[in-house]
Amino acid sequence: MLSKNKIKFIQSLNRKKTRDQEGVFLVEGNKVVLEAVASGFPVKLLAASSSFLKNNRLTATAAKEVVECSPEEIKKASQLKTPQEAIAVVEIPTHQLTNAQLAGEFSLALDFIQDPGNLGTIIRIADWFGIRQVLCSVNSVDCYNPKVIQASMGAIFRVQIHYLDLAKLANEAQESQLPVYGTFLEGENIYTSNLSPHGILVMGNEGNGISPVLAGKIRHKIHIPSFAHGNAGSESLNVATATAICCSEFKRRVV
Amino acid sequence: MLSKNKIKFIQSLNRKKTRDQEGVFLVEGNKVVLEAVASGFPVKLLAASSSFLKNNRLTATAAKEVVECSPEEIKKASQLKTPQEAIAVVEIPTHQLTNAQLAGEFSLALDFIQDPGNLGTIIRIADWFGIRQVLCSVNSVDCYNPKVIQASMGAIFRVQIHYLDLAKLANEAQESQLPVYGTFLEGENIYTSNLSPHGILVMGNEGNGISPVLAGKIRHKIHIPSFAHGNAGSESLNVATATAICCSEFKRRVV
Repeated sequence: MLSKNKIKFIQSLNRKKTRDQEGVFLVEGNKVVLEAVASGFPVKLLAASSSFLKNNRLTATAAKEVVECSPEEIKKASQLKTPQEAIAVVEIPTHQLTNAQLAGEFSLALDFIQDPGNLGTIIRIADWFGIRQVLCSVNSVDCYNPKVIQASMGAIFRVQIHYLDLAKLANEAQESQLPVYGTFLEGENIYTSNLSPHGILVMGNEGNGISPVLAGKIRHKIHIPSFAHGNAGSESLNVATATAICCSEFKRRVV
Repeated sequence: MLSKNKIKFIQSLNRKKTRDQEGVFLVEGNKVVLEAVASGFPVKLLAASSSFLKNNRLTATAAKEVVECSPEEIKKASQLKTPQEAIAVVEIPTHQLTNAQLAGEFSLALDFIQDPGNLGTIIRIADWFGIRQVLCSVNSVDCYNPKVIQASMGAIFRVQIHYLDLAKLANEAQESQLPVYGTFLEGENIYTSNLSPHGILVMGNEGNGISPVLAGKIRHKIHIPSFAHGNAGSESLNVATATAICCSEFKRRVV
């Protein structure tokens, strides 16, 4: 049984403040909960139906605390419109980022991404393309927001997310010969640009792109050209869409 | 002033049945409403604040009926959490699709896309890549669903959407030498495949991919390879993400 206090606690994880104070985040949905348990991330609480626990051979050791509960209790605790059979409360990891982790890698940097669905989709894209580090400006949406976790589809357990000063990062990277790319309307055509297999690609805010201070530090400005007929096409691509196209273009050349 | 009846009518456009009966769909958001007015699609009703009408120099001829109304009235009629200053009711176009429209073009076909956000994002991607026709299986989500319109960001006015039998379409296309591509787990690596500048690319359902009957008809099976380290990566990409990567790959080669 899931106590009223536990239900309240799970509900409260919708708020960043509570997540930060408690050092945990909420994971929902059968598949992602299973990924959480298998991930090596410490699971503080696993609340699930008896059939879910049985079918997936989850014992009392699957988490620090395993609670068998009813669908109604899950529904009360859930943030989802159509809750599934399991919820997990997982400890927020404390990743350290060193320059050595970025050297020889292709990493993503996100400047003030606001929409949780976009951030989650981008983390999933990063995972697909073997990107280990996603670097977010400190004003970006919190990656432990339940909507980010949902959209990331488990990729949150495989990609390390860091919040830091991107302008400082861009300076340091370029000083150590790691190229920094960014997408700009006036950038060079990505399809005909020279792209390094290692570096950092900066993607900007949904409405405003990369902030001026950061933009000033980026040496390699690239652009996805539109193939629309005449001047009639869309003004821009969604940021997650643009990230996917850029990652595909950087990565396919390494094959 | 927006009458109670008009507010009720606008609200009812959330339902496909009403949209089909009335032959109209709902457009919200300042920018997309302006695109609707400029699109050449007949606008049956434009409801907006006086400042919106004035700032954008919209007169009584901007739509069949122009109603100046208060933010409160817009809010009542709106489907959005944060309504803006304008709403338009636009006539659903009756596009005819001929084989000649597909010959010499690169078109998208969508098999049972269920999520309105995905469909809207895909229409926006199609617009960016100069794709004129998007062909949806009859069981796909309705493209005039307000959430599709939102996500398409005005691209709905530039891309023609058709609902039809995709298996029949694939047969006819291949009979007339138009290649049909589809994404499959067992498909050939898209980055090293021969891709025709003309043809139809089929993308499948979010959970289940392309349906077996249609899959059996597709001669060119392609796949976006994962670059994840080991076997640890995400199982799949979101369908809109995958569509963006495929369109980028088909189109960049034509440049």
